[in-house]
Amino acid sequence: MTNNQSIACGTQQPRRKTIRLDNMNAHIKNVEYAVRGELAIKAEALRDQLNKTNSLPFKTIVNCNIGNPQQLQQKPITFFRQVASLCDNPDLLLPENRHIVSQLYPEDALHRAEVLLEHIGSVGAYSHSQGIPHIRENVAKFITERDGYAANPDNIYLTQGASAGVQSILSILVKDQSTGILIPTPQYPLYSATLSLLDATPVPYLLDESQDWSLNVTDLEKSVSTARANGTDVRALVIINPGNPTGQCLSEENMREIIEFCYTQQIVLLADEVYQTNIYEPEARPFHSFKKVLMSMDSVFHDLELVSFHSISKGMIGECGRRGGYFEAHAIDPEVMSQIYKIASVSLCPNVHGQILVDLMCQPPKQGDASFEKYNQEIDTIYSSLRRRSRKLEACFNSLEGVTCNPAFGAMYLFPQIRLPAKAIADADAHGKAADNFYCLEMLDATGVCVVPGSGFGQKEGTWHFRSTFLPAEDLFDDFCENLTNFHKQFMNKYRD
Amino acid sequence: MTNNQSIACGTQQPRRKTIRLDNMNAHIKNVEYAVRGELAIKAEALRDQLNKTNSLPFKTIVNCNIGNPQQLQQKPITFFRQVASLCDNPDLLLPENRHIVSQLYPEDALHRAEVLLEHIGSVGAYSHSQGIPHIRENVAKFITERDGYAANPDNIYLTQGASAGVQSILSILVKDQSTGILIPTPQYPLYSATLSLLDATPVPYLLDESQDWSLNVTDLEKSVSTARANGTDVRALVIINPGNPTGQCLSEENMREIIEFCYTQQIVLLADEVYQTNIYEPEARPFHSFKKVLMSMDSVFHDLELVSFHSISKGMIGECGRRGGYFEAHAIDPEVMSQIYKIASVSLCPNVHGQILVDLMCQPPKQGDASFEKYNQEIDTIYSSLRRRSRKLEACFNSLEGVTCNPAFGAMYLFPQIRLPAKAIADADAHGKAADNFYCLEMLDATGVCVVPGSGFGQKEGTWHFRSTFLPAEDLFDDFCENLTNFHKQFMNKYRD
Repeated sequence: MTNNQSIACGTQQPRRKTIRLDNMNAHIKNVEYAVRGELAIKAEALRDQLNKTNSLPFKTIVNCNIGNPQQLQQKPITFFRQVASLCDNPDLLLPENRHIVSQLYPEDALHRAEVLLEHIGSVGAYSHSQGIPHIRENVAKFITERDGYAANPDNIYLTQGASAGVQSILSILVKDQSTGILIPTPQYPLYSATLSLLDATPVPYLLDESQDWSLNVTDLEKSVSTARANGTDVRALVIINPGNPTGQCLSEENMREIIEFCYTQQIVLLADEVYQTNIYEPEARPFHSFKKVLMSMDSVFHDLELVSFHSISKGMIGECGRRGGYFEAHAIDPEVMSQIYKIASVSLCPNVHGQILVDLMCQPPKQGDASFEKYNQEIDTIYSSLRRRSRKLEACFNSLEGVTCNPAFGAMYLFPQIRLPAKAIADADAHGKAADNFYCLEMLDATGVCVVPGSGFGQKEGTWHFRSTFLPAEDLFDDFCENLTNFHKQFMNKYRD
Repeated sequence: MTNNQSIACGTQQPRRKTIRLDNMNAHIKNVEYAVRGELAIKAEALRDQLNKTNSLPFKTIVNCNIGNPQQLQQKPITFFRQVASLCDNPDLLLPENRHIVSQLYPEDALHRAEVLLEHIGSVGAYSHSQGIPHIRENVAKFITERDGYAANPDNIYLTQGASAGVQSILSILVKDQSTGILIPTPQYPLYSATLSLLDATPVPYLLDESQDWSLNVTDLEKSVSTARANGTDVRALVIINPGNPTGQCLSEENMREIIEFCYTQQIVLLADEVYQTNIYEPEARPFHSFKKVLMSMDSVFHDLELVSFHSISKGMIGECGRRGGYFEAHAIDPEVMSQIYKIASVSLCPNVHGQILVDLMCQPPKQGDASFEKYNQEIDTIYSSLRRRSRKLEACFNSLEGVTCNPAFGAMYLFPQIRLPAKAIADADAHGKAADNFYCLEMLDATGVCVVPGSGFGQKEGTWHFRSTFLPAEDLFDDFCENLTNFHKQFMNKYRD
């Protein structure tokens, strides 16, 4: 190392970095992820400022940018946390502790933890890369009961949240830049971000705002024809149902059309069904899984390649921080399945705590179990409150000047359309901002409420939207709506044409 | 959908899949990951067979293919599990339960859980994408105390195990096929697998088996020159220290040479330091972090880009199933740091349970705390036993005909060289197997012990090795060594030239 001596003794000055923005992975540079983007980063800075001074026009930051229920005081399901804590600390299950522990834990929680640990061994050990076999069996039972059609544990992969599952399936599907994946507009930006990373071609199709964000198969066909005519190899269709950010819930008839479309066009169907229990009009718009609808159709359709995703982060469970979920891979080529396994094994295994919650989500307390009543009551309480809040916020948005908002039939979000004064759009333009981004930044500055501009999800050209969760706690909800209303009035007055 | 009617009514026959081995992502197809490869899959099949019948020449499968201590009965650290279970079930912290709970939990565990929950809120909420700020501060304190040089919490990223951190940093570094990353031979196959996925160019350098697997900077220079002459843009050097699969522990002097080399050659240093507490000759071969060595050198070197990785899966902790870890990014370009944050945010956050364990690893009980003595005793017991077992297995391997094995100065593995009879090599060849793979498959069939062939890690041409952990429980360890010895004798007798 003779030539280093002079460097080591030279005067100190910053040198050029080896890895810079101009020479790093360009696909990463192209990724946009607005849910935790500019608004969210600014909200964190404001939170820090609030902690230091009291100089802002609001007392707290309200994170409506992300479906994170327990951040906004939603209580976890007691039974789930009890079982999880027993799995963490198996000393509590020792016979000598039983007389004390049974004062703190119901019998069914103790029993469930024992069964799980019998199958898992230790939560500190790597599990099977596909997920713990016992838990995959419970997932398969859950799907079988939900759909009335058998599911096979070998087709289930446990994942670190649905996001990780989506990323792994998309990475398998994408061959190169020519691979096209149909994604909705508006969409959850996980999809566009992952396609950017993989350097694949997103093929957008429009959800119809005037028809409650439903999906029009004729439009789908147009998107595919155009893309294929341009040399794009369209291979898969992403559907988020119930919708994010749009809250629609597809009718069974519409789902059948989609399945026929995928079958005819030789397209893999990717069904993001993480909001399957967040259904607010269960009679008019019940949830149907794509697997069930597929299996109820003529058997010729049964070999359509379908991957459906679920998660412990949503529903009434909201255990986002644990990163748990699963996907079911239906009619996928066995050789491709082996490749999915191999790629899962490089990351060793999904975290075991997330897997345990998947087990509990799929097999909650049953009639006759000690925890059944409490469990039901907790689920009902959260559910009814979410439903009330979704309607309250929808009514609030629809009462605002220039704003229209479809109801949320499902999920955790509303996606109102805002018609902004020309002056606001011009001012936004002068600041180098999209108009919806500008509106959302002003909302954050005035109220502390952090939402995500529609441009982060994609929207029909010439329209502006934003996405807000309806997760703020119910006792604060009227204030929350009032703050938004006041902000909007002031904004409109300020920029009125 | 007029053209579907005929299809729906047509006779049923399997059709060509949309996604097949021949048109899926070719980079995934190229990935090899032997730690959970053919041997491990066969071991699982044998385990299933054992559960059904008793027809095999052994009673259990012993997974020495992977560093998974708690799978092989290593006990978790009591204090860690206590705190984790309290965070899971905060009802245990309610005042009305305190008189019962304090019979089960020491005061410091209760206090730690309270402090953590105060900063975290709920373990069920998504955290900051970079990791919980309070925990990152504790990691920075740990590094500062370990090294005697300050660490900045803003440079710490909490990750889902070290593997996730390595994958995210490599994905940032790789621009295209021309990007070269120096990786050791032998190496942990996470590196080669990730480079295959990213379609980057691995630039191998040899560890010197005759010099206790040390690293020769002259060889490094040759590897870089050759690669650069061939148009490869060599950007980073991966060093696993203590070594996996090789168990070496680098001297401070050797580390200084490596740092000078990276500085001169404008190469980012990636230091995989997950085995930093698995040190079995602490006087002769103590662990030094690259960060510490770097900071102890002339300040001209301080702006060398260095990323170092750590994990809760190894050491005496062995909490693999929780998927927790961190990396410290030193002197990385601030614009690149923003990109690292963005890409972390697409996956929302590392699981909170893993983050909690990182906190506990970095700030274990201190002198005067109720759990201090028990904690120390548990760590010492595991450590002494690991050390004894490493020596016992090393002696066992060195006693075998044609086998030589360097000691493990660190980590959890031995990597013996096996000199196989020509007849065995020919027989392996006739079966289409690498000779070391053939040997390991015969070992599995005869003993139920699953190890990984050297070819899964890379090895000098013409040599054969395998990697085995020394993790089987101590009371079974003599039997384990005896089984391996008997197998080896029979194998050599069978194939003797």
